[in-house]
Amino acid sequence: MHISELETPALLIDVEVMERNLERVAAYSKANGFRLRPHTKTHKTPELGKRQLRSGAAGLTVAKVGEAEVMAGSGTPDMLLAYPVVGQRKLERLMGVAKQTDLTVSLDSLEAARELSAAAQRAGIKVGVLAEADVGMGRVGVPPGQPLLELACGLSRLAGLELRGFAFYPGHIRLTNEEGMRALDALSAVVEEGVREFQKAGLPVGIVSGGSTPALYHSHRVKGMNEIRPGTYIFNDRNTVACGGCEWEDCAATVMVTIVSTARKNGFIIDGGSKTFSSDRLLTGGQNTFGLIREAPEARFFNMNEEHGYVDLGETQGRFRVGDRLRVIPNHVCVAVNLHERIYGLRGDTVETTWKVEGRGKLQ
Amino acid sequence: MHISELETPALLIDVEVMERNLERVAAYSKANGFRLRPHTKTHKTPELGKRQLRSGAAGLTVAKVGEAEVMAGSGTPDMLLAYPVVGQRKLERLMGVAKQTDLTVSLDSLEAARELSAAAQRAGIKVGVLAEADVGMGRVGVPPGQPLLELACGLSRLAGLELRGFAFYPGHIRLTNEEGMRALDALSAVVEEGVREFQKAGLPVGIVSGGSTPALYHSHRVKGMNEIRPGTYIFNDRNTVACGGCEWEDCAATVMVTIVSTARKNGFIIDGGSKTFSSDRLLTGGQNTFGLIREAPEARFFNMNEEHGYVDLGETQGRFRVGDRLRVIPNHVCVAVNLHERIYGLRGDTVETTWKVEGRGKLQ
Repeated sequence: MHISELETPALLIDVEVMERNLERVAAYSKANGFRLRPHTKTHKTPELGKRQLRSGAAGLTVAKVGEAEVMAGSGTPDMLLAYPVVGQRKLERLMGVAKQTDLTVSLDSLEAARELSAAAQRAGIKVGVLAEADVGMGRVGVPPGQPLLELACGLSRLAGLELRGFAFYPGHIRLTNEEGMRALDALSAVVEEGVREFQKAGLPVGIVSGGSTPALYHSHRVKGMNEIRPGTYIFNDRNTVACGGCEWEDCAATVMVTIVSTARKNGFIIDGGSKTFSSDRLLTGGQNTFGLIREAPEARFFNMNEEHGYVDLGETQGRFRVGDRLRVIPNHVCVAVNLHERIYGLRGDTVETTWKVEGRGKLQ
Repeated sequence: MHISELETPALLIDVEVMERNLERVAAYSKANGFRLRPHTKTHKTPELGKRQLRSGAAGLTVAKVGEAEVMAGSGTPDMLLAYPVVGQRKLERLMGVAKQTDLTVSLDSLEAARELSAAAQRAGIKVGVLAEADVGMGRVGVPPGQPLLELACGLSRLAGLELRGFAFYPGHIRLTNEEGMRALDALSAVVEEGVREFQKAGLPVGIVSGGSTPALYHSHRVKGMNEIRPGTYIFNDRNTVACGGCEWEDCAATVMVTIVSTARKNGFIIDGGSKTFSSDRLLTGGQNTFGLIREAPEARFFNMNEEHGYVDLGETQGRFRVGDRLRVIPNHVCVAVNLHERIYGLRGDTVETTWKVEGRGKLQ
């Protein structure tokens, strides 16, 4: 099928760029001795999980039980659920996944761990666990040092669970300035110290898991970390570029839209808004716009409603007509993927593959 | 089923509040002689479209062809597609809908109209059209006055189409201050003048369609308007309250979430973020938070990632534990509904109904 036969809005993936992204990260991981366990929240598609495994990933990461159930379909030998699962029904479903693949869960409380332990015992299986540390993101995780050690000791004593190390998410680190580089060095010191403390306490450090897309290619500067789990790198997006994590030509995902109105002076309306792109703003702040229009990089995609994208073009608006199609690099591709039933894999102008986003909307 | 048996995050609808909202708007429309054609983008569910029809709506409104296909399942006798449809395949699908219900499309360009005309002729049917005016929102629509008349004249001459009047969307009007009231009076003058001009030119004004939820109960102040198409009023949300369109007790929709981490000082993490609520901010600006937590109205839901909601509670955090459930009124319920496969209708603590959100993610 030719790209012109698709209806809009449609989420397109340039397969060549995606393959290059996969290969580059696999090569980097191999060269630096990292176990690569990509976070599949970005694509939510078992077929793409399989590609990651084929290109060198040792396992996959998911965020929710529903995603774990879907991603088990990739046949991954190993899965990390990087989220504290709370709730008995969810845990029962999760034990179903643990019977299909070697499951590890990262968590930051003994309350959540006791529920997981009880579920594992009822199911008669062992589930791996990682103690989650907060290394500056201020989201989940206990502080490194004594609280992390105490959490890990508590985890190591619970039946049905097998402590495998610790995890953290350095999503706050942006390497666009000196401050980011210093934050990375500080992270390295914290992780190295954590490994020493675990070893001293006789706790396992088989998995020391971190790594995000923005700081991906600086992972080797974090001593003691042995696993990385970037997600966005498979497609990349405007945030990744803004955070210094890739170049524009590494962005594999675009949303193809149609101009549906040129009645506005100096601008036009496209047929995609918050229901197509999400209303996520740029992580780095600055100009509050919602995507880069490849055919008009100077245009400002400055506002959106659910089905309308507002684009300002100033004096140059006249070159566009109702019916024209544009391709837009979204701010945040992970949330955009979650809004689409299907994504289209393109090689040049040919639609090579259609992937159903099977893990879309798996909130629970 | 009892509410405690649901997994989280889950989107809950208080059925009594919803029914009260439906009845109140139906009564207002009847008392003021308005044809009520609710916008179904808020619920995206044919069963709820049926309820609107049963409670006094004359027809339904949709935003996309995919939504029209789904909402035809409500059996509505009459449907307005309030969006300029562009693209031959979409128009072919739309003609399928037009064979099931009396279809009207609002649009603002002769380019889009000519495509629609061609599709209607190919299908051998008549499709109603409304000329779309921009009354200050700056989105779609031509300026009132001469441009609107010219568009309407052009539409009236196209085969396969039947001009039925004009449409506008006053979504920019907020009635929380004097300025809003003045904007409403200005809108009234524009609409009245438009009706006069159409009549003078021999153009039909059978449908003069406007109306949004925030200004809903002031619709009678807009002279010449004979149809309103509010959407959000069925559930309401934090935006509706902020815009002065309803009170907190009129909010039928809450997202039930679970606290999954209390490791953060003075706050906690809930199991819903941008994938559950959307990252839509408050329309009225002000404090940038993402929902009102009913059990802790003083809490600040100040940040989100896809699966994490960050809540700050200051000194009072200690009263919450991992595993506690909370109910959150979202900023913008329409985009939240679009993220959920199912919504749960509650009466008290009993789950009375489960609705599949059939129109979810119909981007095209």
